[in-house]
Amino acid sequence: MAARQRSVARTISVWARRSEVVDTLQTVDWCDQANADLATCCSGSELIILCAPVKRIIEICHLMAPLLDSCPIVTDVGSVKADICHDCSKSLGAQARFVGSHPMAGSEKTGMENAFPELFQDSSCFVTPVGTTDPQATETVASFWKALGSAVHLETPRGHDAIVAQLSHVPHIISAALASSLERATMQAKDFCGNGLKDTTRIAAGDPGLWQEIITQNRSEVLAALSQFEDEITRFRNAIEAEDTQAIESLLAQGKRFRDRIQ
Amino acid sequence: MAARQRSVARTISVWARRSEVVDTLQTVDWCDQANADLATCCSGSELIILCAPVKRIIEICHLMAPLLDSCPIVTDVGSVKADICHDCSKSLGAQARFVGSHPMAGSEKTGMENAFPELFQDSSCFVTPVGTTDPQATETVASFWKALGSAVHLETPRGHDAIVAQLSHVPHIISAALASSLERATMQAKDFCGNGLKDTTRIAAGDPGLWQEIITQNRSEVLAALSQFEDEITRFRNAIEAEDTQAIESLLAQGKRFRDRIQ
Repeated sequence: MAARQRSVARTISVWARRSEVVDTLQTVDWCDQANADLATCCSGSELIILCAPVKRIIEICHLMAPLLDSCPIVTDVGSVKADICHDCSKSLGAQARFVGSHPMAGSEKTGMENAFPELFQDSSCFVTPVGTTDPQATETVASFWKALGSAVHLETPRGHDAIVAQLSHVPHIISAALASSLERATMQAKDFCGNGLKDTTRIAAGDPGLWQEIITQNRSEVLAALSQFEDEITRFRNAIEAEDTQAIESLLAQGKRFRDRIQ
Repeated sequence: MAARQRSVARTISVWARRSEVVDTLQTVDWCDQANADLATCCSGSELIILCAPVKRIIEICHLMAPLLDSCPIVTDVGSVKADICHDCSKSLGAQARFVGSHPMAGSEKTGMENAFPELFQDSSCFVTPVGTTDPQATETVASFWKALGSAVHLETPRGHDAIVAQLSHVPHIISAALASSLERATMQAKDFCGNGLKDTTRIAAGDPGLWQEIITQNRSEVLAALSQFEDEITRFRNAIEAEDTQAIESLLAQGKRFRDRIQ
């Protein structure tokens, strides 16, 4: 939808497994061709974008490799990059030029019914080349996301995974753990939830299967970032237990400084 | 503003310490009288609402008690109720009839410039009588908040404090601890923050002094609720360390059930 709106593609071809999705795609004006056959969709492509859960991206790349006939540039939208960049490059070999992407856009809502063409406007997008990546592939993929409205940041796959563990995956775990602990407590929660709690737990509504895969695939970086958060919670607990009002206020002020900066 | 809009008061009289605030109040159409003198403001009042940080509410009640001439009903908007209800009733003695309130409305923004008359619409409000509270005072205060658009829940001060520790104070600490741990980490955070992180840390922008007082005043309930959250984080950590994908997904699904319920 965004690519059509901003005229960055001559022909937009979409592969989908389920025939009802293919049928729907054939009725929308932003899609030129839709097909359930992967070879048909990939034939003659210049740029292929794999949009699927992180484990599935690796599987699709493996399936797709022998079907490619145009040495396309291939990228993806997975939230974890080290495994994807390694496995996809290996699967594709000389059949294509892979470079990973992670557009940081979207919400807890999934599916085509929640798609809209302005999704990428003013968002950030990582592009994660490695030493062996074709520089033209990096340039093309970066230009693609910029054309859709994103600010592009180049980062190594592992550097990316450390950043998103801190800024996305651990925040997701925290939001989910808060919601999960409240679900365990029996109370008439709904009546007393203010907007604060709704904000803090909003991302906990995300798809559990999708997030389990992300967390599992980024396990070591997630555990390291989770430790930093656990240390901070311990600092709060110690200050509250000690009734150290100055330490409590100083921790709260440090949090406020971060939040005010990302407005 | 809400009381005027919904015509629930004949005369609205506002006390403010600072003369520039009094001057501003004299120019707005929802305020009939504004004064920096507490005795003048309280004289002849039927219902007095104390709006201040939690410690200050107790101090104002103490100052106000000898100035009262009309045995008014007195309530407050503090976020912690056990200490306030005990201390304010004691200070006021036979001079007034106290019953605590906690309207669960507002945001991380403070000050008159962020006030708007629809604030209470569709919000929840606790009213917290004790055994010795005049039933008429409870009834009047409950009617007042209902007239402003709130759903009113009666609860004991201590029961209220346990609920808000779980649903408001600990969520605030979690949001602040996440933001504070990210402030400690050095990174170009601003560039890579998605809407998820912005939501999860939104309440961390709240006033540190105000929240320090709330946390300190509700210390024992906050520490108990914080333990429940820490246990949940440990469950997540154990599942991730063990690469137990089923346990991770089940915890995430439990969080999603809570969040979907409070939409």
